[in-house]
Amino acid sequence: MSSFPVTERSKIRRMHERGSHEHAAVHAVLDAAPLCHVGYVIDGEPYVTPTIHWREGNRVYWHGSAASRFLRKVVGQRVCLTVSLMDGYVLARSAYNHSVNYRSAMVFGRAQIMTNPDEIAAALRRFVDDLFPGRWDTLRTMSAQELKATSVLWLDIEEASVKDRMAPPGDADEADFPVWAGVLPMQTTLGAAQPAPGPHQDLPLPAELASLIASGRLR
Amino acid sequence: MSSFPVTERSKIRRMHERGSHEHAAVHAVLDAAPLCHVGYVIDGEPYVTPTIHWREGNRVYWHGSAASRFLRKVVGQRVCLTVSLMDGYVLARSAYNHSVNYRSAMVFGRAQIMTNPDEIAAALRRFVDDLFPGRWDTLRTMSAQELKATSVLWLDIEEASVKDRMAPPGDADEADFPVWAGVLPMQTTLGAAQPAPGPHQDLPLPAELASLIASGRLR
Repeated sequence: MSSFPVTERSKIRRMHERGSHEHAAVHAVLDAAPLCHVGYVIDGEPYVTPTIHWREGNRVYWHGSAASRFLRKVVGQRVCLTVSLMDGYVLARSAYNHSVNYRSAMVFGRAQIMTNPDEIAAALRRFVDDLFPGRWDTLRTMSAQELKATSVLWLDIEEASVKDRMAPPGDADEADFPVWAGVLPMQTTLGAAQPAPGPHQDLPLPAELASLIASGRLR
Repeated sequence: MSSFPVTERSKIRRMHERGSHEHAAVHAVLDAAPLCHVGYVIDGEPYVTPTIHWREGNRVYWHGSAASRFLRKVVGQRVCLTVSLMDGYVLARSAYNHSVNYRSAMVFGRAQIMTNPDEIAAALRRFVDDLFPGRWDTLRTMSAQELKATSVLWLDIEEASVKDRMAPPGDADEADFPVWAGVLPMQTTLGAAQPAPGPHQDLPLPAELASLIASGRLR
């Protein structure tokens, strides 16, 4: 099992029985959700912005408008990128033992920016095809101006930790207490596709989108 | 319409047509999701941790273990608390116009900590009953030791912004291009309750939990 280095920073969340620094565990959480929250420091102040991410090996990518002050300010800076999925409410016999089932990965690295338009186009193709296999080649080609207007950022994971919980309430020793206890599972799913208006709105849903919806996964 | 002050910081995300600083809009996003991501700066480095939050007026609360190094280090510090809900993938005719439907609120304030056990107990009661109306009084009472082991933090919202998108692809001018375009809606829901093992596992599900599940909402 390969692991990220165990540093003071990656231990900021107490690791005990719920934690891991293993590559595979970190990657699994990053890959399960499309949305991450990226934390930056600008002029000493914290900012947390949601964005869609994608991953190749230990490199995590995100993108945005080249006009974004945010993206420009974080280039070269240390960032913390966190992905969290809530899997359920855990209702125990006491308030104290209430909890949530969840998966969460926190990764640290330095934000870098791509500047070569060919590299940007290749990265965006992988982004689109990672979410919707084969879609890139079916789309209207990106123009040079659109590529110029798009920033792709990335970080190499230097430190990481993952935590999760997936269990019934942890108070089996209090199971005699007469109150309903258990888990309310929480799931995020894709619903029925909604075609956009237009002359081609009767095109069949591409098979890769139909399978994504049917899979119960988000990516 | 009352609004949070429009500052350089709260404008860090470009506001244009998708943005608002209105109290009601910010509160609505904070109240729609149980999970937030809190960004802190420790020794100049950013950290983003997921946690469950609750709100009363312009005050947002979260909690954790009194032993958490994280919670202790952020007391008195500026934090950025972000809540995001993804509502769908938006598939356009070009890669450039792909987007997501979402709601996101970003609020700024200084983290404060409660120290009075009676106040902590009252805050936790509101936390539990906010999620699961009436549940607190049905639970085994919290012990003094449990209260001591629990930290409750809060911030008063000083600045805030909200952004959202809920629309079909924005490329109606390219509707002639022959590729499937539209929205894959994304929804997070509670599934069938899973009773914990024990002598009371046949207790009926309390009505407030049944209605929460049936509502399609998360809180």
